Amino acid sequence: MAMTETARRIVLAARPVGEPRESDFRLETFAPPQPGPGQMLLRTLWLSLDPYMRGRMSDAPSYAAPVEIGQVMEGGAVSVIVASNVAGFAPGDLVVGRTGWQTHALSNGKGLRKIGRDAPITTALGVLGMPGMTAYTGLLEIGRPQAGETLVVAAASGAVGSVVGQIAKIKGARAVGIAGGPEKCRFVTEELGFDACVDHRTPDFAERLRAACPKGIDVYWENVGGEVFEAVFPLLNFFARIPVCGLISQYNATEIPMGRIGVPQLMRAVLTKRLTIRGFIVSDFAAREAEFHRDMTAWVRDGRIKYREHVVEGLENAPRALIGLLRGENFGKVVVRVADADGAA
Amino acid sequence: MAMTETARRIVLAARPVGEPRESDFRLETFAPPQPGPGQMLLRTLWLSLDPYMRGRMSDAPSYAAPVEIGQVMEGGAVSVIVASNVAGFAPGDLVVGRTGWQTHALSNGKGLRKIGRDAPITTALGVLGMPGMTAYTGLLEIGRPQAGETLVVAAASGAVGSVVGQIAKIKGARAVGIAGGPEKCRFVTEELGFDACVDHRTPDFAERLRAACPKGIDVYWENVGGEVFEAVFPLLNFFARIPVCGLISQYNATEIPMGRIGVPQLMRAVLTKRLTIRGFIVSDFAAREAEFHRDMTAWVRDGRIKYREHVVEGLENAPRALIGLLRGENFGKVVVRVADADGAA
Repeated sequence: MAMTETARRIVLAARPVGEPRESDFRLETFAPPQPGPGQMLLRTLWLSLDPYMRGRMSDAPSYAAPVEIGQVMEGGAVSVIVASNVAGFAPGDLVVGRTGWQTHALSNGKGLRKIGRDAPITTALGVLGMPGMTAYTGLLEIGRPQAGETLVVAAASGAVGSVVGQIAKIKGARAVGIAGGPEKCRFVTEELGFDACVDHRTPDFAERLRAACPKGIDVYWENVGGEVFEAVFPLLNFFARIPVCGLISQYNATEIPMGRIGVPQLMRAVLTKRLTIRGFIVSDFAAREAEFHRDMTAWVRDGRIKYREHVVEGLENAPRALIGLLRGENFGKVVVRVADADGAA
Repeated sequence: MAMTETARRIVLAARPVGEPRESDFRLETFAPPQPGPGQMLLRTLWLSLDPYMRGRMSDAPSYAAPVEIGQVMEGGAVSVIVASNVAGFAPGDLVVGRTGWQTHALSNGKGLRKIGRDAPITTALGVLGMPGMTAYTGLLEIGRPQAGETLVVAAASGAVGSVVGQIAKIKGARAVGIAGGPEKCRFVTEELGFDACVDHRTPDFAERLRAACPKGIDVYWENVGGEVFEAVFPLLNFFARIPVCGLISQYNATEIPMGRIGVPQLMRAVLTKRLTIRGFIVSDFAAREAEFHRDMTAWVRDGRIKYREHVVEGLENAPRALIGLLRGENFGKVVVRVADADGAA
């Protein structure tokens, strides 16, 4: 790396009102920082885009502090170490960590994990990374699909939903996906092996979902909310479990509608059907990380877990890609190629 | 017992619309049945009245089949065995079981539990019976109050709520009760030892509840729903647990209002605060019955769990008393004296 190289980063320029616009982001250049004692310099290769990022752009109360205006957007990335003053980390090593939307980052090694080259390195952002672990831990801790039960998951072609349904299949459950459009639905059933997939864009979506779940729903993986939840609600079986992982239908809303089901009606179902509704984020189950890596690495290697990636070229295109992700325009796990593996932008 | 004695029972005469009326019940007389082989004849001493009975009067879908029109009302009772052809059950033995609103019942022994005379026998319907076990199991399985946490429970002077708060205290948590009127609130704090009690009839109830929970709410024992839930909702802490045990505010409703909080808002809080909402009924945790009897018997004996009973005289007054229970007119666990311990009505 020549010292004259220019680093780039994308910062939050404005808090979005409703759907984010490209003007809510700003591309900046900066001089690549020099690693001091106990620091290393990372060159970002791949940046992950994920729905939670919309939450960080807002200052509404949530489980994590928002990105401040002018700060680098948060995000997980795979990087190569350029220079290191940290024991155990050497130039050329690949690492994954929350280093943000930028071409270069300094790190003291905290929160970084070294990854090998035996699996495609982008999987550290998807099936073998945060989305995969979200699916694995939330499903095994809260959803607990049993053989013969029916699981329903929306965004079924996406980074988390695709893994949720495939693990449910491994556990012997029937997996029913929900996705936007016939192409995604075909992928979910034919490539991922779900038992059924229902297109939420069809006008008779609720009836189709009911037909796809003749024995009701035992596990509903909640990652969208809104009308999908309302279609699921009457189909929930006694003792159904609802891991609440995301609510992407709300993320861009300026005003969240009350919905057609009231809290009193929901609570009545919780009582009479003995439902469990539980929210979580992946870090709540950090204790299961080693188990996750062991199982998921084996499942991916054996072809029991498949994945699809949606590749975006260039850091400068990340804002547009996140806007599309929140609209459901992506098809698979979204990763942004920030530089080639040899570090060339 | 003379064979000319007349037995009495209360049957469901009509399904109530809204609040039950006395005309929804009918008192009938019948000849005391003769126990056949493998049967015994029971004489009811005490009948328990509990909120769940309202659900059995309705044919709306629920976890249990409704009482049919003309059938004896369901209910738990303490009885003395009059005559027995069942091994292990002898005349004079006391038993508790779901023998219904009647002076006499036949049983094959299934579902009956023999009780001693060391504790007052009515406790088999309250603190040492179904309500006590509901509180014990739901709190330890779902609520899991930790030392220093804050628990809130409504109907705090009642059969379940009073035990919930006292167990929370045993576990080192702060217990905040909600009750109707200053007399009940005084009992909850001064007699039961809760840290605070808020009168839900005061116009500034929500503000008072907030003031009584300066560190928020970690466990909310849901047994009422409605406006109490709406006052609790903004006070819920991260990782709060909500065992859903009952919704007495809904039981007499002909139309359940949508409420001021929408399901989308609730689910957003579930996600960002990682709440757990879980419905249960006591039989879900039947495996803990021996443990419950061991702990609760010791706690009652040691004075760590106190209770109060609301005694109704005579089976014929049970309908009126159930109507009152659903209005919150009782003060303590409601038991109906059906006959004296010597079997005299």
